[in-house]
Amino acid sequence: MNYGLVGRVFGNLLLVEAALFTIPLGISLYYQEQKAIFGFLLAMVVTGIVGFVASNVPSRSTRLKIKEALLIVTLGWFGASFFGSLPFVFSGSIPSWIDAFFETVSGLTTTGSTVITNVEGLPLGILFWRSFIHWLGGMGILVLTLAILPSVGVGGFQIFKAESPGPQPDKLTPRIGATTKILYTVYLFITLIMILVFHFAGISWFESAVFTFGTVGTGGFSIYNDSLARYSSNSLLINSLAVGMILSGVNFSLYYDLWKRRWRQVLNNEELRLYLAIVVFSVLAISLNLYGKVYHSVGETVKQALFQVSSIITTTGYSTVDFDLWPTFSKGILFTLMFVGGSAGSTSGSIKVIRLLVAGKVVKRELGKTLHPQMASPITINGKIVAPEVVSGVASFYFLYILTFILGSLLISLEGHDLLSSMSAVAATLGNIGPGFGAVGPSQTFASFSGASKLMFSFFMLLGRLELLTLLSILTPTFWRE
Amino acid sequence: MNYGLVGRVFGNLLLVEAALFTIPLGISLYYQEQKAIFGFLLAMVVTGIVGFVASNVPSRSTRLKIKEALLIVTLGWFGASFFGSLPFVFSGSIPSWIDAFFETVSGLTTTGSTVITNVEGLPLGILFWRSFIHWLGGMGILVLTLAILPSVGVGGFQIFKAESPGPQPDKLTPRIGATTKILYTVYLFITLIMILVFHFAGISWFESAVFTFGTVGTGGFSIYNDSLARYSSNSLLINSLAVGMILSGVNFSLYYDLWKRRWRQVLNNEELRLYLAIVVFSVLAISLNLYGKVYHSVGETVKQALFQVSSIITTTGYSTVDFDLWPTFSKGILFTLMFVGGSAGSTSGSIKVIRLLVAGKVVKRELGKTLHPQMASPITINGKIVAPEVVSGVASFYFLYILTFILGSLLISLEGHDLLSSMSAVAATLGNIGPGFGAVGPSQTFASFSGASKLMFSFFMLLGRLELLTLLSILTPTFWRE
Repeated sequence: MNYGLVGRVFGNLLLVEAALFTIPLGISLYYQEQKAIFGFLLAMVVTGIVGFVASNVPSRSTRLKIKEALLIVTLGWFGASFFGSLPFVFSGSIPSWIDAFFETVSGLTTTGSTVITNVEGLPLGILFWRSFIHWLGGMGILVLTLAILPSVGVGGFQIFKAESPGPQPDKLTPRIGATTKILYTVYLFITLIMILVFHFAGISWFESAVFTFGTVGTGGFSIYNDSLARYSSNSLLINSLAVGMILSGVNFSLYYDLWKRRWRQVLNNEELRLYLAIVVFSVLAISLNLYGKVYHSVGETVKQALFQVSSIITTTGYSTVDFDLWPTFSKGILFTLMFVGGSAGSTSGSIKVIRLLVAGKVVKRELGKTLHPQMASPITINGKIVAPEVVSGVASFYFLYILTFILGSLLISLEGHDLLSSMSAVAATLGNIGPGFGAVGPSQTFASFSGASKLMFSFFMLLGRLELLTLLSILTPTFWRE
Repeated sequence: MNYGLVGRVFGNLLLVEAALFTIPLGISLYYQEQKAIFGFLLAMVVTGIVGFVASNVPSRSTRLKIKEALLIVTLGWFGASFFGSLPFVFSGSIPSWIDAFFETVSGLTTTGSTVITNVEGLPLGILFWRSFIHWLGGMGILVLTLAILPSVGVGGFQIFKAESPGPQPDKLTPRIGATTKILYTVYLFITLIMILVFHFAGISWFESAVFTFGTVGTGGFSIYNDSLARYSSNSLLINSLAVGMILSGVNFSLYYDLWKRRWRQVLNNEELRLYLAIVVFSVLAISLNLYGKVYHSVGETVKQALFQVSSIITTTGYSTVDFDLWPTFSKGILFTLMFVGGSAGSTSGSIKVIRLLVAGKVVKRELGKTLHPQMASPITINGKIVAPEVVSGVASFYFLYILTFILGSLLISLEGHDLLSSMSAVAATLGNIGPGFGAVGPSQTFASFSGASKLMFSFFMLLGRLELLTLLSILTPTFWRE
C-alpha cells in the first residue's frame, strides 16, 4: 500500500474543501453571522492544516493501484464528511458531533435526511453550506479534486468508477481528466439555468440557489421545516422543481450527446426511455388513486403526484405534502420507487434504472430458455452487448443491496419503531433519498434515533452513495493482506 | 402441441384424484357425515368422468416435449385445485366457489392460508381432505401420477423438474420413475414416523394425522381456529412439531443418502449447514429479543422462538401464539425468513436456502473481483462447479420473485389495508407460508378480502409452488406461437 500517494490525494481533497469553505463564509460575512463566521474560519484552519500535512507525506510512486484508489475513495468520503461537519459544530448550529456528522454525510451523499428539528433557526451561511454539499457530493467530491488537480495515473479511472453511479461509467473521452471536465461543465450549466428558472418562478436568489443544489444534486435538504409545503400552491415553481429533479436523474453524458447533436442516440437510449416510462406510469397510477379521495381537481392531483414521484424516484426527497397520509396504494408505489432511483451517471442514488433494465432482460432471456433450453442469447443494451461480468455484477449488486437493506432494517428495528418505519428509514438512507414513512415520514426527522443508529444511518448513506462494493471490499480481510 | 398427450396425463391425474377422494369419504362414512358423504361422492363422479374423457383424447405420439410438459404442469395444478375444491362446495362446507378454490389451492400448494373463519364447524372428512391435500401437493401431484403411471418419455423429467423446488432437481437414479419412487418411499416413511411421534406426544390419531400432513408437507392448515395455541403448553408436542417442520425443510434426497450411509455427504452438505445455521441464529436472536419482555423463563422463550422460526422458515405457517404482537425486531426476523424458505428438494416454499447460498457466493466472488479484476473463479457448491446458466437462473429467479412480490403487494394494497399487511399477505401466499402480519396475522384469516383478491392470491400461491417460470412462460406469446 502506497500510503504516501493515498495521503497526497486525501490531503488535496481536504485542501479543496478548506478552500470551498470561503463561499459560505462570504455569505455569513455578508449577513454578519458571528458564530457562523467563527465556525467556518476555525474549520478552514483545522481542515487546511490536516490537508497540508497529509498532502506532504512522502510517496514512492505516483501510480495509483486499485487498492489505493478504493482506500482513497473511502477515506475521502469519510474525511470530507468529518471535516465538512466542523462548521456545524464550531458554529454551535449542531452541537452534537454525531448529529453534525450524520447531517454532513446526508448532505454529501445527496440523501437529505435531517436530524435538525428547527432548520429555520440556523444562520444562512450554515444553511448554504448544508445545501452546497449536495452539489459537491452529487457529481463526486474526488472527481472534482481530479478535475482540478493533475492526473494520478490509472487509478484516476478507479476513483471515477467508484464515484460514478451505475454498473459501468461512461468514458466520454479516452482521458479521464477530460471526461470529468466535460461532466462538470454540463453540471455547472444545468445548475445556472435552474437558479435562473426557480428565481423567476417566484423565490429569492438565495432560496433559488439552495433549492437548485438540492435539486440538481438530488439531495433534498430544505431551508424550511416543512420542506416545500409553503410553496405548494405556486404551481410554476413546483412543476419547475419536478422537471428539474427529473432532468437531474438523467445520465449526464446524454446532455453531452445532446450538445453534440447526437439526437438519435439520446432518443433511443433504453435507460432514458424506461426511466421516463416509470415516471409516467407512477404519476398516472398515483393520480388515479388520489383523485376524488385526496384532491378534487385533476390539475392539483397530477401536480402533487408528479412532484412526489419525481422527488422519490430521483432520490431527492423534497415534499410539498405529507405523502405518508396518502392511501396505501400510492404509498406502496412511492416505497417501490425508493428502490428504483434515477439513471446511471446522474446524481441520483438507489439501485438505478439501468440495473432494472439489465434485470428485466435477464428475466426475459430466462423465460425464453424455459421454452428453448438450447437458446443462448447475449444481453444487449442500446444495441451493444453487455459483458457477462457486468451482468453478474448487477446481480451481485441486487443481492448485496437487499441483504444490506434487510440486515439494516433488523438492526434499526431494535429501536422499537414499527417495521415499515424501520424499513423505510433504511431504504431512505441506503438509497440516498431522505424521508421515508411513519417515524421518518416527510413531517418527521431522524432526531429521535439513538447515536448508534445515527452512525449506522451515516454508514448506510455512504454505502449507498459508493454503491456498496467499494466500502465493503475494504472491510474484507483480503484487502489488508499484502 | 400434442393435445392428446396433454389430455392423457391430465386425465390420469384427475382419475388419481377421484380415487383419492375415497380416503376422506371413508372417514365421513365412519363419522356418518351426510353432507360430506354426498359431497365426496358427487365430486368423485364429476372428477372421474372428466378424467376419463380427457385421458381418452386420441394422441399422435407418446413423447412429451417441453412445451407440453409445461402445459401439463400448469393445467394439472389448476385442474387438481378446481376438482379438489368440489367436495368443499358440494358438501356445503365452503359455499362460495372462489373461497373453495382459494382454500384448495392453499392446501395443494402447502400454503395454509385460509378463508374459513370457523374451521371447527366443518365435518371431519372435509377437514381430513383439507389437510391431506397438503401431503399430496408437498411432493408434487404430477410426480405422484408419474410414480404410479407408466413413463411418458423425456417429458417426465420436465414435469419432475417443474414440481421439484430449487434450481436443479437431484436425479437419484438415471431413471426419473425410479427417483420419484425413492422420494415417495422416504416421504411415506417420514409421514408414518411423525404420526406415531405426535400421537404419543398426546394428541388423538386423527389430530396426529392431519397435523402430520401439515408438517411434512409444510402446509400449516389446522383443524382449530387458534392453529396450535391450545397445545402451547404441551412442550413435548410443540417441540416435536418444530423438529418435524425443520426435518421437512431438508432436501429429501439427503434422507436417501442417510439410508445409503453416505454420512460425509450429508454432514458436508452446504445447503443443510446454512439452513440449520439460519434456524439457530434466528432462534437465538428472537429469544434474546423476547426474553424478559414477552416470556420470563428461558425454556418457554426458546420453545416459542424455535417453533415460530421453524414454522416460518419451512413455510409451514403454524402458530402457537399471535407472533404479530411480538416486538418489531422479532417480527422483522420472521418477515425476513418468509423470503428464505427451506431447502431445495424439500416440501417447503419461498426462495430456498440453496439460492441464498448461490447468491452469497456470487457476492463473495464480486468482492474478490473488486480487488483483483482479472480473477475468474467459478461458483462451487458441495465441491462441484455450478454451471453459469444455473447461476444466471438463480439471479433471474430473484428478480422475478421480487418483481412479483412488489407488483402483487401494490395490487393487494388497493384493498386499503396498511402496507405491511398487504406486503406480508403477498409474501405469505407467494412463499406458500400461510399467515403474515396485521390484517393477515396468525389470529386473522383471508376471509375479508374481495373475490378478485382471493383469485389473485390463488395465482400467487400457484406461482410460488411452481417457482414462477413454468407458469409465467405459458403466459408469453412465444409459448403459443407454433
